[in-house]
Amino acid sequence: MDGPKRNPELRKDTVNSRWVVFSPARSRRPSDFKSKSNPNPNSNNQSECPFCIGHEHECAPEIFRVPSDSTSEWKIRVIQNLYPALNRDLQQVTESSPSQEMSLSGFGFHDVVIESPVHSVHLPDLSPVQIAQILLAYKTRILQLLSYQSIKYVQVFKNHGASAGASMSHSHSQMIALPIIPPTVSSRMDSMKEHFDQTGKCSLCEIQLDRLQIYESKHFVSIAPFASTSPFELWIIPRNHCSHFHELNEEQAVDLGRSLKLVLQKMSLQLNNPPYNYMIQTSPLQANQPQLPYCHWFLQIVPQLGTIGGFEMGSGCYINPVFPEDAAKILKELNLPN
Amino acid sequence: MDGPKRNPELRKDTVNSRWVVFSPARSRRPSDFKSKSNPNPNSNNQSECPFCIGHEHECAPEIFRVPSDSTSEWKIRVIQNLYPALNRDLQQVTESSPSQEMSLSGFGFHDVVIESPVHSVHLPDLSPVQIAQILLAYKTRILQLLSYQSIKYVQVFKNHGASAGASMSHSHSQMIALPIIPPTVSSRMDSMKEHFDQTGKCSLCEIQLDRLQIYESKHFVSIAPFASTSPFELWIIPRNHCSHFHELNEEQAVDLGRSLKLVLQKMSLQLNNPPYNYMIQTSPLQANQPQLPYCHWFLQIVPQLGTIGGFEMGSGCYINPVFPEDAAKILKELNLPN
Repeated sequence: MDGPKRNPELRKDTVNSRWVVFSPARSRRPSDFKSKSNPNPNSNNQSECPFCIGHEHECAPEIFRVPSDSTSEWKIRVIQNLYPALNRDLQQVTESSPSQEMSLSGFGFHDVVIESPVHSVHLPDLSPVQIAQILLAYKTRILQLLSYQSIKYVQVFKNHGASAGASMSHSHSQMIALPIIPPTVSSRMDSMKEHFDQTGKCSLCEIQLDRLQIYESKHFVSIAPFASTSPFELWIIPRNHCSHFHELNEEQAVDLGRSLKLVLQKMSLQLNNPPYNYMIQTSPLQANQPQLPYCHWFLQIVPQLGTIGGFEMGSGCYINPVFPEDAAKILKELNLPN
Repeated sequence: MDGPKRNPELRKDTVNSRWVVFSPARSRRPSDFKSKSNPNPNSNNQSECPFCIGHEHECAPEIFRVPSDSTSEWKIRVIQNLYPALNRDLQQVTESSPSQEMSLSGFGFHDVVIESPVHSVHLPDLSPVQIAQILLAYKTRILQLLSYQSIKYVQVFKNHGASAGASMSHSHSQMIALPIIPPTVSSRMDSMKEHFDQTGKCSLCEIQLDRLQIYESKHFVSIAPFASTSPFELWIIPRNHCSHFHELNEEQAVDLGRSLKLVLQKMSLQLNNPPYNYMIQTSPLQANQPQLPYCHWFLQIVPQLGTIGGFEMGSGCYINPVFPEDAAKILKELNLPN
């Protein structure tokens, strides 16, 4: 890492059609990117936590729990968000479009997935099978939301740590079901379709792994993407083509659970337990759900190691001081039992 | 502001082709958005500041100063960034594109505009004429950069406060000249062109002001945009159609200086001096620089009042708890001498 100084380079992410500036001169070593922040400065403590077992009455209504029988203790709860961004009781989509002001009623769903009954347990503390149950809970909820014709996309995401947007420290993820296809998804679909139309191939099926690979399992490969927008950004990609996350089966879920646990542990050890976000990047929902030959779902993990400034906000172009091949090497070389 | 609870609403920004979720249920009152953070926790102190007068030798090379004669003290210095994101000495653009990996050499410019010789003076402390000199320094530098054929866009931006990305507290802005058209700019150009092709009108020329207007001067109008991505986001827009910022003349610069000073003062007083970014959203550079009938430049100001989480990062869709008409009212009703 202390070798000859590398020149800056611009790389285009052909999946998202986005340029990234790689600028190693802005830092000395990739290890400069260890997190300095306590991931949970605003964390609520256990005695006041509504997500803990025994506090269910302090939460918004439950949608379902795992296991579903009420005789045993729950392991996972899927509940409504107490402060939802969208309203499930509004009329589905009433468009008003006077000249150029375009708006829709805020119909949609905003749910929370409580990942463990115990306050101090974080996602990578769980076993691959337990993580698989969380992934399958996302799938179950997506299948329920599919019945609403006006829901076009479900964004599954996790915020870990206050500076990554988490207001609760108890391990949880969220799902927002939208009546529109959001901007990042539209542009990803367009970009991947363009690549498919030009080459006849899915851009993620033919991704070049070599220096970028961190871990490979039976069904998934974990990489630092060629044009990562952030230092140590990771993608976990299904090895076989699949356009929708919710086609995940139980065997694949356990395999993904193992990969997710492993890369989160590596990230935590090598980067000093940074705040992070993960997002499931899937395809829009459609009534008959055909496989899309050009779109390939993946799970994106972004540790929060820097600050976004006016350049990124104004241009949509990110400055990343760590080349992904260096990030991949640092994460790959750490051996963990799996 | 404490009236009947409003339902959430989705709005589309037709300038940037971006959906925003307005969700007032996520907060009680717009006043909840007063900044809690000291804007400069990491600020360097005056005795160590290389941007202060007398410390010029500690900086990277100067490009020019205002006034340009060396007999009087400088008011503004435009210098190279000591840690540039791009390298001005690299060969201009060598493309290597094996299959889908697309990259360019990191040729480009990264400059700093020191806005005052005095450490404690911030931008809104300056007079409209002094701010005009800063705006005209941006213009002068853009005109210089126009001579490099491979430079496609210059992003002018300011980071105020550590959480807005500023590493120095001495008032400054930055300019990054890129060999590509960045993603936000491409999509804005596409979106405004589409509107023009459909209606024959520029979307910013025909913007509906009514409830969104904060301040109007001879040449500019300051608004809270209809689909603001962030609470209290502001745009200062030229009243007459103009595609490129660098066509600004001296009279317009003083008028823009007055508007910028006023809205920054209002923002500081009503929101407790928040960290903020501003960005000049202009058109790509072209050799013969024609006026583009569909593209209209503007200055975008974004106070940093919240945290970006996995939803925004994954979907590109922002959740804004403050309707822009409420933000406009709060900023408009504060009277300041001007």
